[in-house]
Amino acid sequence: MIIIGERINGMFRDVRSAIKNKDPKPIQELAKKQTECGAHYLDVNVGPAAPSKEQPDVMGWMIDAIQEVVDTPLALDNPKFDTIKVNIDRCKKPPLINSTKCGAMLQDYIGLAVEKKSGLIALTMDESGVPNDTDGRVMHAATAVQAAMDGGLPMSDLFVDPIILPVNVDEKLPSQVLQAIEQIGLLSAEKPHIVLGLSNVSQGTKERRLINRIYLALAVSRGLDAAIIDPMDEDLVNAAITAELLMGQHIYCDSFLSAYRARE
Amino acid sequence: MIIIGERINGMFRDVRSAIKNKDPKPIQELAKKQTECGAHYLDVNVGPAAPSKEQPDVMGWMIDAIQEVVDTPLALDNPKFDTIKVNIDRCKKPPLINSTKCGAMLQDYIGLAVEKKSGLIALTMDESGVPNDTDGRVMHAATAVQAAMDGGLPMSDLFVDPIILPVNVDEKLPSQVLQAIEQIGLLSAEKPHIVLGLSNVSQGTKERRLINRIYLALAVSRGLDAAIIDPMDEDLVNAAITAELLMGQHIYCDSFLSAYRARE
Repeated sequence: MIIIGERINGMFRDVRSAIKNKDPKPIQELAKKQTECGAHYLDVNVGPAAPSKEQPDVMGWMIDAIQEVVDTPLALDNPKFDTIKVNIDRCKKPPLINSTKCGAMLQDYIGLAVEKKSGLIALTMDESGVPNDTDGRVMHAATAVQAAMDGGLPMSDLFVDPIILPVNVDEKLPSQVLQAIEQIGLLSAEKPHIVLGLSNVSQGTKERRLINRIYLALAVSRGLDAAIIDPMDEDLVNAAITAELLMGQHIYCDSFLSAYRARE
Repeated sequence: MIIIGERINGMFRDVRSAIKNKDPKPIQELAKKQTECGAHYLDVNVGPAAPSKEQPDVMGWMIDAIQEVVDTPLALDNPKFDTIKVNIDRCKKPPLINSTKCGAMLQDYIGLAVEKKSGLIALTMDESGVPNDTDGRVMHAATAVQAAMDGGLPMSDLFVDPIILPVNVDEKLPSQVLQAIEQIGLLSAEKPHIVLGLSNVSQGTKERRLINRIYLALAVSRGLDAAIIDPMDEDLVNAAITAELLMGQHIYCDSFLSAYRARE
């Protein structure tokens, strides 16, 4: 599974205060720790730590701080196209663009990803919002796959995110998103990656780690091959590795957990 | 999920020594503890603790010992038809017969289950052995469903077991059994229960509890609604409850784990 480390995000108190104090150390520590725990990408999200007009500069500062200590590729996480665009050349390795909707800006994002040889996360939604069913998600995914093919973005660089919402908001939705994951995997001969911002599923619940763990295992069993998660949550990563094993994706050995980590 | 408590089995050292010493107390303790932890049935298996010809008597002794302390229904677990038959009337509540193959004896077992208003576990195998693929399992399941219909056994009393084998023997098999579970659920308008002797999946591995937990969650997400497990393994039961929640089978509440247990 492709692990996108979620922890460098201004919504977390330690990161928010690092940004406010212009102190790179806590961010650099999180970059090193997530990398040690096997993150393939590090998400970089200013979040609520700075007002909209300062976000491009703050993201630039965060990128520089992280790249001083690790060379893990980054996932530039911002809702504004321009914030991504002005920062993408700062990245020493092609980043993952996180994210575009499947709406008016989809072609622009694909153009940027192709030009910069970057990955792109496409959320299965448009300006009218998130579909409340499986079919709506798959329809948007088909739009993203088609647009990527038309625009010359390889499927290996497209990450479709069928958007999981909290189970306490709608307990029917998690199973619909599992169906969407399966169906998105059938859209094209060459498959896009399928990714989730996993921790949304447990937002506001009292058993967050358990719900995250079980849902990640279920999603992996339907074809999820990337996730935005906390790579330092060992139980969570173990759940994903074990689900992959039980889906026949690894050869069994007694030390399959450490063997997987060593391979990374 | 219908929980069949697996712990009263002569393959476990404490039960074996209780049988050898004719000491009912350890068995009665396990009966009480498994019941407190939510077991709907208690499996009763002499296992390797007595030679074949003594098994009917030993099982009778175990049944009496258990029924002195709890009134939880029993699952009579023995490979011989006669061992079940001579003990079934000893049970104060209709037991679950565990188990029949889908071979020469299938009709006899169905006849006994119908006569005694008991449940029946049908393994998806015959005298030639366990199929090594999904289709073979589903074919045997279809035989069991058809024979139950012909013999007058209600689907609510039929438990089809698609037989999980250890992941360290064949890492392709667990995902095939998941497919079998899904397909068995589509065989008939009225569905049989689907059950697994879960702990087989982790036999001989070094991460037994983790593998059991994740596989149970995956199996529940495909339609498993009964399992032979250790109900005292709280993490395992939590995994099943959480998988049911995430498949939309429960209404979310913050205390969904304890709410589920209280309901039982």
